[in-house]
Amino acid sequence: MNIHQYINEKIVKNSGNIKAEEQFFPTYRKTIEKNEIITHFGQIERKAYFLISGIIESSIEKDGEIRIIDFVFPNNFICSYTSFLLQTPSEIQTKAITDCEVEYFLKEDLEQAYKTSIVANQFGRYVTERLFISKLKRENNFLTKSAKEVYQNLIEERPEILQKIPVNKIAKYLGIHPESLSRIRAEIT
Amino acid sequence: MNIHQYINEKIVKNSGNIKAEEQFFPTYRKTIEKNEIITHFGQIERKAYFLISGIIESSIEKDGEIRIIDFVFPNNFICSYTSFLLQTPSEIQTKAITDCEVEYFLKEDLEQAYKTSIVANQFGRYVTERLFISKLKRENNFLTKSAKEVYQNLIEERPEILQKIPVNKIAKYLGIHPESLSRIRAEIT
Repeated sequence: MNIHQYINEKIVKNSGNIKAEEQFFPTYRKTIEKNEIITHFGQIERKAYFLISGIIESSIEKDGEIRIIDFVFPNNFICSYTSFLLQTPSEIQTKAITDCEVEYFLKEDLEQAYKTSIVANQFGRYVTERLFISKLKRENNFLTKSAKEVYQNLIEERPEILQKIPVNKIAKYLGIHPESLSRIRAEIT
Repeated sequence: MNIHQYINEKIVKNSGNIKAEEQFFPTYRKTIEKNEIITHFGQIERKAYFLISGIIESSIEKDGEIRIIDFVFPNNFICSYTSFLLQTPSEIQTKAITDCEVEYFLKEDLEQAYKTSIVANQFGRYVTERLFISKLKRENNFLTKSAKEVYQNLIEERPEILQKIPVNKIAKYLGIHPESLSRIRAEIT
């Protein structure tokens, strides 16, 4: 799937009275190598990426230590979104953890489309709603669930993380030591 | 400020080539008494509220214990947004902590406006972007900041919370005991 197909699938198909415009903003394709940093800490994010193949992680930093906040799989968007929206220095780093194929567009082109295109706005709203829902779920996890419960949720809801991400990275995502994760895994199976 | 003024101020004024439509969806006014629950746990959220006066808190529950996740002040929107978007049972409770005056609209009227109005979509996108930014900031706080650092941020960024919210509720928001908050306050002043 590419961005245009995503918009047709998620937005245009579901809104009876709207006809797909051929292109809302220019998009570009790019290959990113494994371990390449896409957006650096402190960088102003000007691009939003759609992941066609591969896996990307986003992380934050405290006292030199990296905490992973998300793993992104194909057919999803990824960028440092607060930086992209506000044009402030990024508190997030995004990095390819496998070779990746992405399609991206520029903030200024999106802003231009937002001025005139209802579909572009529906698209931006839809993607942002999904991002919000996933962040609220994560807040809920932090406040009400143990690491074991969060891990059990991952098994049910995001099995691709368990299948495709190394254990040490899953531990960084859960905010626990790899040994604690091994213990949890032993308890569950 | 009311919803129509909010849309004119935040959306229409900033988008050169768009003229304000008079009304995008019907809105209703309501008075809510102090301590009244607006949205209950498990309820399907059908309304989005704009707070004209008063203060509302939103919270989640674990093992019968309430954790406050936000305080909402006038000129902001509040609802159980995941429930509103997905029409799933609410994991969030919203409650008036003072007498409140609100304006609200219905999900079905908003969805109708989303189909045809670019301004309605710009509005929905703008509000959702702000909600996302605040949730990401909160995730960042959980992962990288101590309770003391989060409290110091509150002093700088949301002084109205310190001025208008009782200490025991601020402790519930920070996820610490009231005694720990007293210690932090003593250290800072």
